[in-house]
Parts: sequence; structure tokens; C-alpha cells
Amino acid sequence: MNTLGVVHRTIHRADAAAVARLSKLGVATVHEALGRVGLMKPYMRPVYAGARMCGTAVTVLLQPGDNWMMHVAAEQLQPGDVVVAACTTDNEDGFFGDLLATSFQARGARGLIIDGGARDIDELQKMGFPVFSKAIHAKGTIKATLGSVNVPVVCAGALVNPGDVVLADVDGVVVVPAALAEQVADAAEHRESFEGEKRAKLAAGVLGLDMYKMREPLERAGLRYID
Amino acid sequence: MNTLGVVHRTIHRADAAAVARLSKLGVATVHEALGRVGLMKPYMRPVYAGARMCGTAVTVLLQPGDNWMMHVAAEQLQPGDVVVAACTTDNEDGFFGDLLATSFQARGARGLIIDGGARDIDELQKMGFPVFSKAIHAKGTIKATLGSVNVPVVCAGALVNPGDVVLADVDGVVVVPAALAEQVADAAEHRESFEGEKRAKLAAGVLGLDMYKMREPLERAGLRYID
Amino acid sequence: MNTLGVVHRTIHRADAAAVARLSKLGVATVHEALGRVGLMKPYMRPVYAGARMCGTAVTVLLQPGDNWMMHVAAEQLQPGDVVVAACTTDNEDGFFGDLLATSFQARGARGLIIDGGARDIDELQKMGFPVFSKAIHAKGTIKATLGSVNVPVVCAGALVNPGDVVLADVDGVVVVPAALAEQVADAAEHRESFEGEKRAKLAAGVLGLDMYKMREPLERAGLRYID
Amino acid sequence: MNTLGVVHRTIHRADAAAVARLSKLGVATVHEALGRVGLMKPYMRPVYAGARMCGTAVTVLLQPGDNWMMHVAAEQLQPGDVVVAACTTDNEDGFFGDLLATSFQARGARGLIIDGGARDIDELQKMGFPVFSKAIHAKGTIKATLGSVNVPVVCAGALVNPGDVVLADVDGVVVVPAALAEQVADAAEHRESFEGEKRAKLAAGVLGLDMYKMREPLERAGLRYID
Amino acid sequence: MNTLGVVHRTIHRADAAAVARLSKLGVATVHEALGRVGLMKPYMRPVYAGARMCGTAVTVLLQPGDNWMMHVAAEQLQPGDVVVAACTTDNEDGFFGDLLATSFQARGARGLIIDGGARDIDELQKMGFPVFSKAIHAKGTIKATLGSVNVPVVCAGALVNPGDVVLADVDGVVVVPAALAEQVADAAEHRESFEGEKRAKLAAGVLGLDMYKMREPLERAGLRYID
Amino acid sequence: MNTLGVVHRTIHRADAAAVARLSKLGVATVHEALGRVGLMKPYMRPVYAGARMCGTAVTVLLQPGDNWMMHVAAEQLQPGDVVVAACTTDNEDGFFGDLLATSFQARGARGLIIDGGARDIDELQKMGFPVFSKAIHAKGTIKATLGSVNVPVVCAGALVNPGDVVLADVDGVVVVPAALAEQVADAAEHRESFEGEKRAKLAAGVLGLDMYKMREPLERAGLRYID
Repeated sequence: MNTLGVVHRTIHRADAAAVARLSKLGVATVHEALGRVGLMKPYMRPVYAGARMCGTAVTVLLQPGDNWMMHVAAEQLQPGDVVVAACTTDNEDGFFGDLLATSFQARGARGLIIDGGARDIDELQKMGFPVFSKAIHAKGTIKATLGSVNVPVVCAGALVNPGDVVLADVDGVVVVPAALAEQVADAAEHRESFEGEKRAKLAAGVLGLDMYKMREPLERAGLRYID
Repeated sequence: MNTLGVVHRTIHRADAAAVARLSKLGVATVHEALGRVGLMKPYMRPVYAGARMCGTAVTVLLQPGDNWMMHVAAEQLQPGDVVVAACTTDNEDGFFGDLLATSFQARGARGLIIDGGARDIDELQKMGFPVFSKAIHAKGTIKATLGSVNVPVVCAGALVNPGDVVLADVDGVVVVPAALAEQVADAAEHRESFEGEKRAKLAAGVLGLDMYKMREPLERAGLRYID
Repeated sequence: MNTLGVVHRTIHRADAAAVARLSKLGVATVHEALGRVGLMKPYMRPVYAGARMCGTAVTVLLQPGDNWMMHVAAEQLQPGDVVVAACTTDNEDGFFGDLLATSFQARGARGLIIDGGARDIDELQKMGFPVFSKAIHAKGTIKATLGSVNVPVVCAGALVNPGDVVLADVDGVVVVPAALAEQVADAAEHRESFEGEKRAKLAAGVLGLDMYKMREPLERAGLRYID
Repeated sequence: MNTLGVVHRTIHRADAAAVARLSKLGVATVHEALGRVGLMKPYMRPVYAGARMCGTAVTVLLQPGDNWMMHVAAEQLQPGDVVVAACTTDNEDGFFGDLLATSFQARGARGLIIDGGARDIDELQKMGFPVFSKAIHAKGTIKATLGSVNVPVVCAGALVNPGDVVLADVDGVVVVPAALAEQVADAAEHRESFEGEKRAKLAAGVLGLDMYKMREPLERAGLRYID
Repeated sequence: MNTLGVVHRTIHRADAAAVARLSKLGVATVHEALGRVGLMKPYMRPVYAGARMCGTAVTVLLQPGDNWMMHVAAEQLQPGDVVVAACTTDNEDGFFGDLLATSFQARGARGLIIDGGARDIDELQKMGFPVFSKAIHAKGTIKATLGSVNVPVVCAGALVNPGDVVLADVDGVVVVPAALAEQVADAAEHRESFEGEKRAKLAAGVLGLDMYKMREPLERAGLRYID
Repeated sequence: MNTLGVVHRTIHRADAAAVARLSKLGVATVHEALGRVGLMKPYMRPVYAGARMCGTAVTVLLQPGDNWMMHVAAEQLQPGDVVVAACTTDNEDGFFGDLLATSFQARGARGLIIDGGARDIDELQKMGFPVFSKAIHAKGTIKATLGSVNVPVVCAGALVNPGDVVLADVDGVVVVPAALAEQVADAAEHRESFEGEKRAKLAAGVLGLDMYKMREPLERAGLRYID
């Protein structure tokens, strides 16, 4: 078995135009457009306020306490990519800091999603290199064991294939399969086009009960009002 | 049994003047004035820095992954209310976002306390609609199963009855039974009136050991100093 | 057995000059210089953004729900100290607030590291008194049971002896044994002196693979590239 | 405010016959009969395999690290009672061991439900005194601070009033309000009377899809079969 | 997007002979043979002591608090299958009990792996129907929202495709891709064939240091012995 | 700095007679005798029912995902030792299985306490080699990075020095400093000698309120009885 120890140099990145469109939308909207799936677990949080990113995934499978593969991944990065790092086991070590961020940024990467720890947070913020992680941890790592680059990974509960679109904002992280990027962008934009109207109605005091015509189904479900 | 599926339209809200007084105090002070009880668990955190609220509780009992009752609750809101949402089981889905916030705000609500997840955090912050939650999660919910509105709920470990005063600031969330609002406001203000004097003494270098006359009880308890 | 109920008045604080040097470094760097040990667990977080401190440890061993020993500790503080508070069991009560902070600050303390809860966060931020804690919790404590002051404690997984250097920034908290302070400062400064050069190379597009000469060891370990 | 420091000597226990009937049922069945509410959180587990109990609640509100009120509660126990212990904050200390169990058993108590820790597990098993707890922890407690006995408490997320029926088995812990005990026993027995027939059908290979007539609603909901 | 609401009736199950061979091995051995990947997170535990299973996966994607799809899955089961149930969000409700177990068993299923809760544990044990779950929880579920059957799912951190081999014992749960079943069985058996010899040597007092020839690499790595 | 990469061959083990005496006592009693300190966190649990051990600590400091030092530790074991393994970071990998257990047992070790994961649980039980761990996890480890043997370690929140007495039973794990072993054995035996009398009184119906003369202090503390 050789699931570890491989680097795929050729991956199919999602359509750039679709990525550009998705980058203007919110994670909540895109996840709804995708059919309410594709989200990472909510323990994934931005390491500094305002962090946000959208790009195509270059995936990394790490070993606990070891960030060797991050350096291998750097070489595979193209402008517009986002690194998505998973680990073979739960581990919150600080796999990533400002030096790797400098390298990733030099390669055109737009950010990092890591199901583990990151450090040098002040520097990351100054550099404007966004990171979403499970933890902030100063704990350093070694470079001794092989993992893989650009294999499918499970990161914070979500399956990520190399080339998928990854969108992260304050609401969380969503993964859009590369093949669906355009279709999801369509659906998300469509969805959003109705939001303004709804918001205006609700702001004017119209109740969701009426706007969504919920009174009848609620009654049918047996809701009782007691004075 | 019909603990679910009911909406109480008539609730007894705490005295408005007492609420106004409590809104000027801190959660830590009020919880002390209440006899050191009434706090929600500390996992309840503001979804944006600076969020803070005080109002009378309209309670909601949600089902996992379902926010139908939030819309039912909107109709029961009066200016000065705070929505307190519990769930029949642990669930961190994003039950609440900017559209519901628009509706709640239009009804005069002052914020939301939810033992679950919220989303659209950027928009909530822009609207100035404060939310304290267990999680931030983009995960959307459905509208399929009945819960209840304005029944007593256990939210983040605290019992909340409709009409109770709910006060939330960076230190946490405290619930003051409606009938005790005035009495607690008295006690809390009284408590606070002594804080300035104590602070001045401590700032001047007086030790708590002396200010609180602790040396003798410490000695009696057996404390030993070793040089 | 009398492990509880003692206060050591004489402790050996780390060399002040070494503390001053360490205070200019980051936690991640210092932990590396120390041989990749000495970190507290990553659940220890600053209670407000930007909190940071460096000083010599005055340790406190608390009992659950009881902050009596904090007052005893205040008297042992000298300018430049940092209070490190552990508890005999897991407990997130708000052992510490603005009054104790006023007292600690008056004694010259530089901050608090507590494996428990803190409160009055707004006031702490206004005062500029940094605190790193496991939780923020308004829950008040009593003063009834003896713990100890200036005994070795295990705080958030790290052993802290009185007088050790404690450094805390956004990346976490690291403990440097007093006897090693100077040596670690040397090693950390040395380490940092190389960072700029590395950063410049990486920013210019040099890969870590080449800069750290990893290609050959990766090949030897069996890494396979697939096109 | 005096929510702490009180002992109610007079409580209204649920009807003994209803308790007897409920004691023969399972927690899952009773919780369904109650309308799918009333459960404690699933972290409450039996301290030894096979523990199980049913009785009327005598409630205790503990302070962290302090089991003084357990002794006060002992005096309020009557045969058939179950002690339900909550704490004013999260705390896993070993509030309860074999001596208290001996005392409770001598008073006729049927077991303990505690949102905290217990110890002397081997002895509890030998005595046949069932305990459901959040933790097993050898950590001892003190007797210094007042809590209350027979006040309403929130235990592991469930509201428990003195006199309520508490039923615990391997599936968890459910609380039945005293006033509903008979009605819930009726509903639960009714519910159970159909289980045998259903089980027989399913064992014979009938699908739930057919037995519950789900095919049509699934189709209406849009389920698609793909070969 | 239609990732939810589908049932795949045709799946490619792993070779039966390979499954039979894997069923005789341990999870730890198989995971090593697979290259040290494929494990679910360690929070997945047997609901009763001695539970153990091996079979081909029929996957289910559940919605929180809803077990409708479990009934849909029942129809897709063939003798030798194991049901693997994931959920669109973290949820510990009791999605599974003795009635579903009866149905699954009647269809020839060998057990259930569920990233959620199960109930009726006593009955499951009596029936000999093994379940590995995240939680034991009496909380019942509804049947209202579509999920999917036989789509790829992420269950407890592991990707599971329909037809994969799932092996569960006291050490955990491992997933072997269907296409690798035979190869992994070979490698695992090979691996195990050496265990007896190693065990005998170690039992005779030979040190791993010598048996694995570690002394030289340890010295090279810089290990220092201090007397 | 060289806190890692060392093996101390000479350690001072606690007095064998005191260890023998402590081995007959319970963890709860010994922890009380030690002054209510020395306990590991309650997440440390026996990997099989009935596991129990008492011996002198040989300590190991592991790196995440790496059990190399376990083999180094084996050589340092003497009959009557217990291995206490900590890790430089939180990690639940299966550092320990039946082969290492065979080796440890051959050296006369009495068990393992590990702040991490263990595997091959069935075999460990058959061998009668007791293990207390944070997790059960099939995840294998590598042998690549140096840790240390027989240095002071923090294991599950407790400081353990080589040679200390470690006692583990169903109630948890307690560490007795080697120098205090005899004194603690005295105190614990003394303590236990009174238990029988107390138990008899309580079994006869005497209340703790009277036996411990609590009525007067409770009244003084302000306890109010309400009929």
C-alpha cells in the first residue's frame, strides 16, 4: 500500500472564472447553493480577525508533529491556490509559521486551511496571509516522515480533492468540488439576488411567517397558541 | 404529553425600569448580586467583539437542524426583548443569520442568546445586532419540526423563563428571574457603589490581605510562611 | 503531608537582564531555543487581543471555586513578576477580576497566567493588565480553603517553578527555567538572527526544498512524484 | 437574594404507583412518551456496568469542590428517593464515595445522579448502589460552603424539580415531572405494547419502508433511486 | 446540486473472500498493512464490551435528529454488509435502536458504525448486533428530511465509499477501499506471521533495542545516557 | 538546551516496602493521605475493566506519533516498575501494543500509564498487563525522533519524577513522591483504619450531620430549613 509518500504534480483546478465569482460570495450562501453540504467543522477558525480567502486546493497530508510535506507542497503551488492541510491523526502542533507563509505567498498562494495548529500569528496578520486552523500553537514540528501532496484528504470533516474550490470567511470553510464550481456559482448568485428583497420586507416588519407562508403548515403540524 | 408544539402569547416581562438599571451593570456584578447563581456556561461567547445586550426573554425551544420556531418567535417579540434559544439536543448548526436578525430587529429585539450556532457574522456586526452563541457555523437549517415558544428552557445550563431579564457582556450571560429584577438591581448597584473605594485603596498599594482582614483567618486555617 | 497551606517568601528569580532580552522575543522562537519544550497547552488564550507579557513567575495553587490564595500571592509580588495560577482540579470559575488586577498592578506585576477563568475583561483591557486564561467566566469565587504560593505547579500542562521566566504572546505561553534564562536568550537571539535572511530568500521564490536541501532526503525516504 | 443556603423539607413526590410502573420501562421509551424531551446530556454514564435506577428526586445544589450539602441531603431522603446533584459550575471532583453511599442506602435511597465526579467505584458496585455521573475522579472535596437541598436544579442540561421521577439505565437519564408521572407511564406502556408486533414483522423481513408506509412520502420529498 | 436525496442501488462490494480473511485480523494490523491510514477517530467506541464486526459498507448520510434514511438503507442491505452512517453535522441523537437493528439483522447486516448516537443498548447486546458509535443517547429522532444512501461519506474523519471493507474491534474502526481488500489482506497476514516470533523473543527478554537494531540509529540521533 | 535526548540510568526508586503497602490501598485514600494532591486528570482510564497497578515510575517523554523512546525505556525497567509516558504535545496515537507489553512484562514491569493512546487491548487483557490511557487508538507510530527517559514529566496534569510511586485503580491515578512514600502509606493506613467504624455507623442510620457534628457549623453558615 502506498497511500503515503506520493506527490501528484498534475491536478485539475476549478475554472478560474468560477473561482472568481465564488470569491465574492459568502460561505453560508455557497454551502446552501451546494445543497447544504461541503462544510468543514466549525472548530476551524480564522487566526486573525478579518481573514478570508478563496482559491483552488493544493492538498497536503501531514504526519503528527511533522511539517515536511508543507515544503514539498510549496513547489506545487500556482497563483490562486489555497493549501489545505490534513493530518493522519488529531494533532494541534504549530505546523505553519511566517517562513512557510512567506514561501507560499511568494508562490502566489492565497491562504492556508489546516486541521492542526499554526503560529507566528502576528506576522501572518502583518503579511496579510490568511489562515484558518483548529488551533494556535507555538509548538514546532520536525521534518522526518513522509505524507503526501495532492491526494484526496479529509480536512475537519470535509473531503477535499486537489483542485476543488475552497472558500473561507468568518462563517466557516466550504469546499466546492471543481466540477461543480460554475453551477454552484450560478445557484449562489441566484440565491443572493433574492436576499435584498427579502431583507427589505423583513426590515419593514413583514413577518417570516407571512413572507414564507408558514402559518398554514405550522397549523397543520399542530402548533397551538395559548393566551 | 405536549411539551412541544406550543406558543405562549402572554408572558410576564420583568419591570422595564429594573431592566434599564440592570442594563448599565456588568454580568459579573449582577451574578454576584443574585447570590452567585444564574450564569450560563462560559462556552457562550459574543459572535463579534463588543457585543452586549440586556432585555426580557422570549424563549424558543428548537429541534436540531431546524429553525422553524425562530420565525414563530419573531411574532411574539416586543421592543426590549432578547430571544433566548435552546435546543432539544446539542447542535451547533447555524440556526440564525442576517435575515432573521433583520426581522428580529424590526420587531424591536435587542439581541439573541443561542445554545447553538449562528452565521452571517459580518452582517450581524454591521447591523449592530448582538448575538451570543455556542458556535459560529455556516450550516443551514430546515423548517420541518415543531418546537415551542415562550416555555421555560434550559439554555447553556441556565433555566430561563419567558420574561426573565437576560444580560450579556464580554464576561458571559446571566439570567435574572423577572420577579427579582428590581431587588437584584438594588443589590448590584449597592455592590458597585463600593467598588470605586476598594479599587482606589488597592491601587494605592493596600493589600487585599489587609483590606479584607484576611490575615487572621488565614493563620487560623493554618497557612505557614516559609522564608 | 503539607503540600497545601504554604507560602514561600524567598524565591530565586531569573536574571533580570535575561528576562528583558526574552521579553523582546516571540514564544515560538523561545520554545525552539529551549529545545522544543516548555509550552503550555494551546487552550491558554489572551483574554483580549494584543495581550502579551514577560516576567518572573510567582506561582499560586488554587482550590476550585476559591481565590483566597490570589490575595496571599499579591503580597509576594515584586515589580517584573507574572502570576502563574494553577488549580488542584479543572475549574473555569472567574478567579480573577479588575480588583485583583488593580492590586497586582500596584505591586508591579506584569500580568497573569491562569489555568482557570477570569472576568471583568473590559476593565482588564482598559487597565492594560494582560491575562492568559483557559476561560472567560463571570462566575465568582469564595475565600475559604488554603492552597499555596510559590510552590512548583503544573499549569496548563507545563511545570512552573517560582522564579521561572514566563513569556506569553498570541502564539501561546512558554516557561523558561530560571537557570536557563540567559542561555535560552542567547540561543533564541541567535536563532532569530537567521530568520531575516531565510525570509528574504523565500520571499524571492527560493523553495524550502532547496534552501534546506530536502530533495535528497525526501528521495531517500521514498517520496514519489506522479505526473 | 438567597437562592443558596436553603433546604426544603417538604416536597411533593410523584405517585409511588406511577414510579413503580416507570421503573419497569426503559429510558428511551419513557422519553418518547414524554414527547421527546426530559433527557440529560449523554455524558452522564453509569459508573459500573449494569447500574440502573428509578425513584423520586431529592435535589442537591453543590458548590465546586465541596460536598457539604450531600450530608444535608441525606437527612431529607425517604425510601424510594434518588439523589440528583447539580453544581453551580462545571466541576468533576469526586463529591461522592462509599461512605455517603452507605448513608444514602441506609436511608432507603435508590441511587445518585450527579453532574460531577464520583469515586470508590469498586465499593459502590459491591454495595449495589447505582450512580450515574459525568466523571469518575478520586479527587476529594471539602465541606465549607452552602448550597441548597430540594430546590429546582439544572442537572446535565435537564431541569429537575424535587419529587420528579428520575429513571436511569444504560441509554441515559430521563426526568419525568411529578405531575405527569401517571400519564407518562400510560403512554410509555401503550407505546411498548406495540413494540413486540413491530419487532416480529421486522424480524420476518418486512421493511420499515413498508411497515411505516414511507415510500410515498419519500417519493414526494424527492428521493431518487439510481441503479 | 443534488448531493442529498439519492439512493444508489448498485454498488461494488469488496471481494467476499478478502472480507472473510480481513475479518480474522485485528484493526491495528490491518491499518498498518494499509500504510497507516484509514482509521476513524478514536471517539468511535463499541456500545457493549466485545462488539466486533467486519463487512462491506452500505453508507448512509443522515440529517441531524432524523433517521429516515436508515429505513431507506435497510432495503439496500445484503448479507455481509455493515451500515456506515454519517451525519451532515455533529449530532449525538439516538438515531438507532433495537427495531432498526432487528430489521438490519433480518437483512443479513453484520453491524452498524455511526458517527452519532445509538440507544436500546441492552437489547442490542442481547441480539448480538454490534454497534460502534460516538455516543449512547436515548434521544429519539424524526423522519422528515432527505439524506442519501450509498454515496461516499466522511464518517468520524474517514472517507468511506459504498462497498469498502469496514473492520471494527476494541482498538477502533478501519476502512479498507474495496479495490485494495485482497492486497491489504495479503499484507496484513504477512505482517501477522512475524508477530509470533517477535513476541517470543521479547518474552524471552530480548530488547526491542537489539531486535530492531535501534542502538546505532539512536546514537546517531544523539541520544545520551547519563548515569 | 538538551531537555530532550537523554536517558538517566540511575534513579532513586521509592522504598519497596512502602510501595508494597501502598499497593494494598485505594487511589482515593492515598490522594487524601497525600493532602488531596497528586492526582492525574480523570480522563485517564483503564483500557480494560479491573486493570490496577502500583509500582515505581520509569518515565518516558514521547514525541507525537513516535514511540521510539518506549524501546529505550524497556532497558531501564526493573521488576516492580511502572512506565509513565508523557508526550511533548497532545496526541492520542497508539504508542503501545502487545509487543511492547510483552517486552515490558518480561522486564518485570507492572503496567503502563500513558497520556496518549494504546492498542491491542484484547491481547493486553489476556496478558494481564494493565494500562491506563487517555485513549484507545489503533493508530500506529514511528521511530524517528528522540525524546527522553527518566526525566521529570508532566503526565495528565501531574508531575512525575522517576522513582515516584504510581498507583492506579478504577478511581484514577495518583503519584506519590518517592521521598514521601512511607509517610503517605502511614497516613493512608491510618485513614483507612477509621473507615470501617464510620461505615458501620452510617449503615446503622446515623447521619453524617451528627457523626461529623455539622449541624452547628451549617447553622452558623446560615443554612435555613423551610417546611
